[in-house]
Amino acid sequence: MKVVFGSPGTRSGLLLRTGQIAFAAVSIAFMISAFGFSNYTAFCYLVASMGLQALWSLGLACLDIYAIKVKRDLHNHLLVSLFIVGDWVTATLSLAAACSSAGVTVLFVKDTNFCKSYSQFSCGKFQVSTAMAFISWMFVSASALVMFWILTSS
Amino acid sequence: MKVVFGSPGTRSGLLLRTGQIAFAAVSIAFMISAFGFSNYTAFCYLVASMGLQALWSLGLACLDIYAIKVKRDLHNHLLVSLFIVGDWVTATLSLAAACSSAGVTVLFVKDTNFCKSYSQFSCGKFQVSTAMAFISWMFVSASALVMFWILTSS
Repeated sequence: MKVVFGSPGTRSGLLLRTGQIAFAAVSIAFMISAFGFSNYTAFCYLVASMGLQALWSLGLACLDIYAIKVKRDLHNHLLVSLFIVGDWVTATLSLAAACSSAGVTVLFVKDTNFCKSYSQFSCGKFQVSTAMAFISWMFVSASALVMFWILTSS
Repeated sequence: MKVVFGSPGTRSGLLLRTGQIAFAAVSIAFMISAFGFSNYTAFCYLVASMGLQALWSLGLACLDIYAIKVKRDLHNHLLVSLFIVGDWVTATLSLAAACSSAGVTVLFVKDTNFCKSYSQFSCGKFQVSTAMAFISWMFVSASALVMFWILTSS
């Protein structure tokens, strides 16, 4: 199997995983610190989805660190197939969560002017949290594409 | 290049394209017939995204019909690379549109009980339109995966 940028068990792979964890964690932190977020399904779904994303990426980051330390090659069909399924599932869920939150946030900020009318409403935090979720999705979709490329071109 | 289910220029490929066009068209029809949809960015974006999806799939369906009629092979690197970029872009945009509409629809139906309070509001149509957009996305993501598979395994 080819070793490309972002491959499992490499420093570049670990970098992608770290990005996924960091942005997912920041997204969750901003959302749960926003007043009244739990009243809205899209925002609760964002927290759940980013939580799953962070856990999955944390697991693979630990595996990457172990592989780098003991110089173990993680490029075998079974492992890469497992990574690909997890990456694609979490990437799709992350994009879905980021987009549904973006839809609701735009509704509050622009369509209904709800944010201007109710200043105690944490619109800024909703926006930052959604943006962080999109960035986390970009990192995980890069990992997912790399895995698919490795598997199909082997 | 391999010929698999959903390959360009085959009957199965045409079937996938027809599904994409049909569900995108039904999604647009339900949305534009819903009262006041244009006041909400997420719903306008759904119409735009499904319009782009339908146009792209229609173009490729015409190409499939032509290839089937004259028995032309569409499996070359340049064409498949073009299809893959178009399919991935439209698939991502379709999922984003479906999810943002779903976020807003759930807000209206469940989170705020807006639909119960204002019966003239076309919540049923928003729900059907969003569901059709998700089905259209499933068809286009199948096409996108097939294209990626063909390109990378050749």
